[in-house]
Amino acid sequence: MPKYPETIQHLIKQFETLPGVGPKTAERFVFHLLKQSPADLDRFSKSLTNAASNITTCKICGNFTDDSSCEICSDPRRDNSIICVVSHPQDVMAIEGTNEFTGKYFILGNTLNAIEGITPTDIRIPELINKIKKDNIKEVILAFNPNIEGETTMLYLSQNLKSLNIKVTRLARGLPVGADLEYTDMTTLTDALQGRREI
Amino acid sequence: MPKYPETIQHLIKQFETLPGVGPKTAERFVFHLLKQSPADLDRFSKSLTNAASNITTCKICGNFTDDSSCEICSDPRRDNSIICVVSHPQDVMAIEGTNEFTGKYFILGNTLNAIEGITPTDIRIPELINKIKKDNIKEVILAFNPNIEGETTMLYLSQNLKSLNIKVTRLARGLPVGADLEYTDMTTLTDALQGRREI
Repeated sequence: MPKYPETIQHLIKQFETLPGVGPKTAERFVFHLLKQSPADLDRFSKSLTNAASNITTCKICGNFTDDSSCEICSDPRRDNSIICVVSHPQDVMAIEGTNEFTGKYFILGNTLNAIEGITPTDIRIPELINKIKKDNIKEVILAFNPNIEGETTMLYLSQNLKSLNIKVTRLARGLPVGADLEYTDMTTLTDALQGRREI
Repeated sequence: MPKYPETIQHLIKQFETLPGVGPKTAERFVFHLLKQSPADLDRFSKSLTNAASNITTCKICGNFTDDSSCEICSDPRRDNSIICVVSHPQDVMAIEGTNEFTGKYFILGNTLNAIEGITPTDIRIPELINKIKKDNIKEVILAFNPNIEGETTMLYLSQNLKSLNIKVTRLARGLPVGADLEYTDMTTLTDALQGRREI
């Protein structure tokens, strides 16, 4: 079986490291790029180098930033007494998109996961508890995906934050917009019933 | 709506230029990469720079190479009198995978496409005709996808190569391995019938 030139093989291997990208897709990406001008390839390469050298994590919330603290943490108009705890930086963007939350964030970096061996000390939980003890936090919103890892993390956090005498809340579970009662799973329907609100 | 740091935005935009990659996938790629070490990002970036500076097209067949002529064209054991004409470099790898073909290749770079305005002079057809006239070519195999663009290209080439007094062939059409007669489309079945072989 003949092979692509080594430079191409290396580049394909690099693209294969991306999530959900197999050899075929990586090949497709590389051949697409090779059709571009060398200047375009160079721009791509520079963006990567810039990201490697400029992006750090915000020393307050743990989000990615190209400054010492991120845009949200350094915004004086935002409420310091409420923090929303999420697992990934992308979750911050999702919640910001609602324009509903004016507090600050805290990014754990991951969720507790027994199978992958991710324990509380792996995911900035000690830092979170320190922050809550030190700053004057009134409410902690736990915003995790409603799956096993997210639920585990929320359970662990709620138990450990109980003694700190603060309000701990979680995102409501229930019917998503556009849902069809007939085809909704039993767990979601149970959540929706238990969480029903007066109108 | 808040935004990611500019360095991250730039990198996301770069990944969005890849085929089949939308904003969400690009974001996923970038956050995956940001979790890697800066050394890993640097390696990725270097692979791109290397590809930009080292990869050229083979002056004989038009395939990508990091030499002046590609591995296949510079292989003295291969038959110079048969050339297999394909549209993309990836097609060469597919055919090489069969271990069935020992001739040389010629890569057009694309197929004729009336809608996108791709004409014979855009895709190295003049170079191909020149090569056939100059070298002692006995057979030209047209290996294109059996779709509108591929068929158009093969029709154009077969008409233009007729006068050169060489054998022009195309890949057989018929039932693929594992096909089910009952669910095979009529065009494929017609091809299979017309191309039937004595056993």
